[in-house]
Amino acid sequence: MIDPFNDEYFMKQALIEARAAADEGEVPVGAVIVCNNRIIARAHNQTERLNDPTAHAEMLAITAAVGVLGAKYLTGCSLYVTVEPCVMCAGAIGWSQLSKIVYGASDEKRGFQQYAPKALHPKATVKKGILENECAEEMRNFFQRKR
Amino acid sequence: MIDPFNDEYFMKQALIEARAAADEGEVPVGAVIVCNNRIIARAHNQTERLNDPTAHAEMLAITAAVGVLGAKYLTGCSLYVTVEPCVMCAGAIGWSQLSKIVYGASDEKRGFQQYAPKALHPKATVKKGILENECAEEMRNFFQRKR
Repeated sequence: MIDPFNDEYFMKQALIEARAAADEGEVPVGAVIVCNNRIIARAHNQTERLNDPTAHAEMLAITAAVGVLGAKYLTGCSLYVTVEPCVMCAGAIGWSQLSKIVYGASDEKRGFQQYAPKALHPKATVKKGILENECAEEMRNFFQRKR
Repeated sequence: MIDPFNDEYFMKQALIEARAAADEGEVPVGAVIVCNNRIIARAHNQTERLNDPTAHAEMLAITAAVGVLGAKYLTGCSLYVTVEPCVMCAGAIGWSQLSKIVYGASDEKRGFQQYAPKALHPKATVKKGILENECAEEMRNFFQRKR
């Protein structure tokens, strides 16, 4: 049986969020949080609209997800995000105890893998490169239009 | 002339916030953000009350401060926080471009100095150990009561 709820499926949902961000003039990063194959939170970068440098997609998704669950931690949940989380978001992912992190494009300038490699919960698994080209293209297109 | 607005003065204000957190059953960390010798934002940890693992004192203070200034960045502003910022908060401090970070007690288990030493803006200055004992004591007392 084909499982429609695979990593690509959820990353496509995160990409829809990233495109919504781009349409609003925001850096196109999107995220969804999944619990038992259900999307419990979805968000995109809103640093411009909220005038808040902390309003990254992952932060907004985590705050929304703990609100939905009424739980303090997101143990057992997965985060799908189009771009490698930054140091701030990786720290938040660690505090929330998300169990699985899947990202599309790498971010060599700001990504946590280089600048805070131990930020996540020690038992968390990380998978990268899912729909990498599509995720990276959103970013490239956005910054090319900006110039 | 004596300048009443020195690092100790502002750290005492952060300590007042930390004690408010303790009174509410929150981990006692307090923060203030100062711009031209004026406190433009003050906050304490609210992870329990908001049921949000990202609701650290520094995060709340940064979001409040950019709101007060209507500016995207906090360049030229100083953050006073009773305990060394974690990775998440250090990342947020970096994004907000705070120019000066002063903290009281070190946090060897979670502090950014060990886990994300390059998170801050490259031009930011860091000063530690201001009212260190008082800041550390708040934390010790809190966790002793918890046991």
